[in-house]
Amino acid sequence: MAMPGRPASGLTAPSPNNAYILFLMNKLIRKSVQDLHAYTPGEQPNVKGLIKLNTNENPYPPSPAVKRVLREYSAESLRLYPDPVCTALRERLAEIHGCMPEQLFVGNGSDEVLRLITRACTQQGGAVGAFSPTYSLYPVLAEAEEVDFRPVELAPAFQWREPPENMEATLFFLANPNAPTGVAYAPALVEAFCRRFSGVVVLDEAYADFADGVNGVALAKTQPNVVVCRTLSKSFSLAGLRIGYAIGACDVVAALYKLKDSYNVNRLSQAVALAALEDLAWMQANVRKIVATRERVAAALVERGWEVIASSANFLLSAPPEGSRAEDVFLHLRHRHVLVRYFPGGRTGRYLRISIGTDAEMDAFLAVL
Amino acid sequence: MAMPGRPASGLTAPSPNNAYILFLMNKLIRKSVQDLHAYTPGEQPNVKGLIKLNTNENPYPPSPAVKRVLREYSAESLRLYPDPVCTALRERLAEIHGCMPEQLFVGNGSDEVLRLITRACTQQGGAVGAFSPTYSLYPVLAEAEEVDFRPVELAPAFQWREPPENMEATLFFLANPNAPTGVAYAPALVEAFCRRFSGVVVLDEAYADFADGVNGVALAKTQPNVVVCRTLSKSFSLAGLRIGYAIGACDVVAALYKLKDSYNVNRLSQAVALAALEDLAWMQANVRKIVATRERVAAALVERGWEVIASSANFLLSAPPEGSRAEDVFLHLRHRHVLVRYFPGGRTGRYLRISIGTDAEMDAFLAVL
Repeated sequence: MAMPGRPASGLTAPSPNNAYILFLMNKLIRKSVQDLHAYTPGEQPNVKGLIKLNTNENPYPPSPAVKRVLREYSAESLRLYPDPVCTALRERLAEIHGCMPEQLFVGNGSDEVLRLITRACTQQGGAVGAFSPTYSLYPVLAEAEEVDFRPVELAPAFQWREPPENMEATLFFLANPNAPTGVAYAPALVEAFCRRFSGVVVLDEAYADFADGVNGVALAKTQPNVVVCRTLSKSFSLAGLRIGYAIGACDVVAALYKLKDSYNVNRLSQAVALAALEDLAWMQANVRKIVATRERVAAALVERGWEVIASSANFLLSAPPEGSRAEDVFLHLRHRHVLVRYFPGGRTGRYLRISIGTDAEMDAFLAVL
Repeated sequence: MAMPGRPASGLTAPSPNNAYILFLMNKLIRKSVQDLHAYTPGEQPNVKGLIKLNTNENPYPPSPAVKRVLREYSAESLRLYPDPVCTALRERLAEIHGCMPEQLFVGNGSDEVLRLITRACTQQGGAVGAFSPTYSLYPVLAEAEEVDFRPVELAPAFQWREPPENMEATLFFLANPNAPTGVAYAPALVEAFCRRFSGVVVLDEAYADFADGVNGVALAKTQPNVVVCRTLSKSFSLAGLRIGYAIGACDVVAALYKLKDSYNVNRLSQAVALAALEDLAWMQANVRKIVATRERVAAALVERGWEVIASSANFLLSAPPEGSRAEDVFLHLRHRHVLVRYFPGGRTGRYLRISIGTDAEMDAFLAVL
């Protein structure tokens, strides 16, 4: 333990041996963390006039109740710790989804919820499964947890492919609707898979409010191995607030509570989320507008010769006509201050993922094309 | 993988075999999580008129700038994701501490920061060290990470004891001032230990603003194995906001960024924290008041025959005179709506930990005694 080569005093004394320090640094950090390929979030540039269609944010503001909560919030109460288990929020969510608060876990964004599930539902030397392509966070979570990631290639046009019987994963992430494809899977396929799979299936329904008939909550309430994840980031226009939640069997939920940071959701986020959840009509009206815009833009793209994957989310995966490369279109749009998402390589390399903005933003996008 | 005993259809069909389901549940949750003893935060009861001296919250409100930020905050901006790396906050903190933003990690409370460090700076089969008694979260973090926890018993009156040379931990949590004792260690002892220890030393300085001359930042800037943790929960009166940060070598900080959830600190917390950090004078004035109250209450307790551990924090660890048991006093206070913290068993079982409230609250506390 002793480090004989180092000076015994003098805070700013130069180190006698830089190579030794470098060796030390490598020793200090867990090997798997040194090797980890961290998740890359979409760009968040601060450019005026930018049309931002790259991170699936909602173009409409959250419920006016949010503004009211902030204006009237007791700043003094911030001196106190938050409710560590989000009691009021869980009661409201239980009411919305017709379940018990004990079946609900609220996290600091879906990110936290998905990470905790990965930790709780894998074993050392285990494996996590998911379709490919899908949300690129899943393999990062597996890598951070030092377990195998086993991708299941989707069928042509990103349609359902039955995962193999022998994949030997204890956890399967099933984004429905899927990202970045926007494809929603038939409920019967999802249900049959959940019943067959011996591990935990996470139905990541971040985009479910934009889809017709996607709702795994009934399954989560009856199948002990099914957890549904939802978020307020998309349909509720609250990506900046970091509220995600899980619905599942009490045992799985209890495991997440054991693992979470003591006070994972701050006071303001709890208060604001509650206000937003009291105003479902506002969220639903925004969702209707976005779905209508999505269908209009999809038709306009098809008319221009683009391939459009039928979407059940608040974005479109779409490939430019033969002769133009997705990357070139991405750069052209970017140059004209329209930001979309481009996932190079693999099956997504031909496509762009275009978040659905306001009608005016989408008209500007189509005009730049 | 197939589960032959389960019905192929019918969401609400009763399970044919409850024992099988229970067996399945046990299989679904990681063994170490099933066995984990989760951290128990102090009670947060919602009782009117309660004098809450149990969780070291600041009795004074945060800077008036916080109220202003909330009143003027653009609720619409919450539709956008937050800055994933807290750029503005880190620049301000770098200015305060005289370091580079690259040496700073901002987390969703110190909880997150300490958890990420535990993950990044341990190896499978490794060990974490800390004094005993100390912040009871540390052993929980080690257990959650499936590494050994190696406590080093403090000397009498909770004073420094040199950790053994052969403890073979890759990480040592050193709360300074310590909790729940309030003891600050001599800078020379801390520095010599940091230079000697071959792993990472976390100087958890949650209470440093209440101490004279406790500041490990200079050490963190020159010793690659030292990380200082700070929080806005105590001195800045923002426990409800969840902002903690770490200062350390760029490599260690970079590892924390790799591991953290993509958007770990929400927009509101970033904006509010920045406002609070622009008003250091407010924090310092509150700290002076609390320190004055602490010394007054310590003297009053000594006068009543209590043993008082000299404190450098915003709380006192104090034992009632011979003849009264700490637990009885705790229950008596509780019955009279004064809540303090009692840690049963071990060396703390004789003591109560009393957070320093306003002068009026402390007078009421002394009156109930």
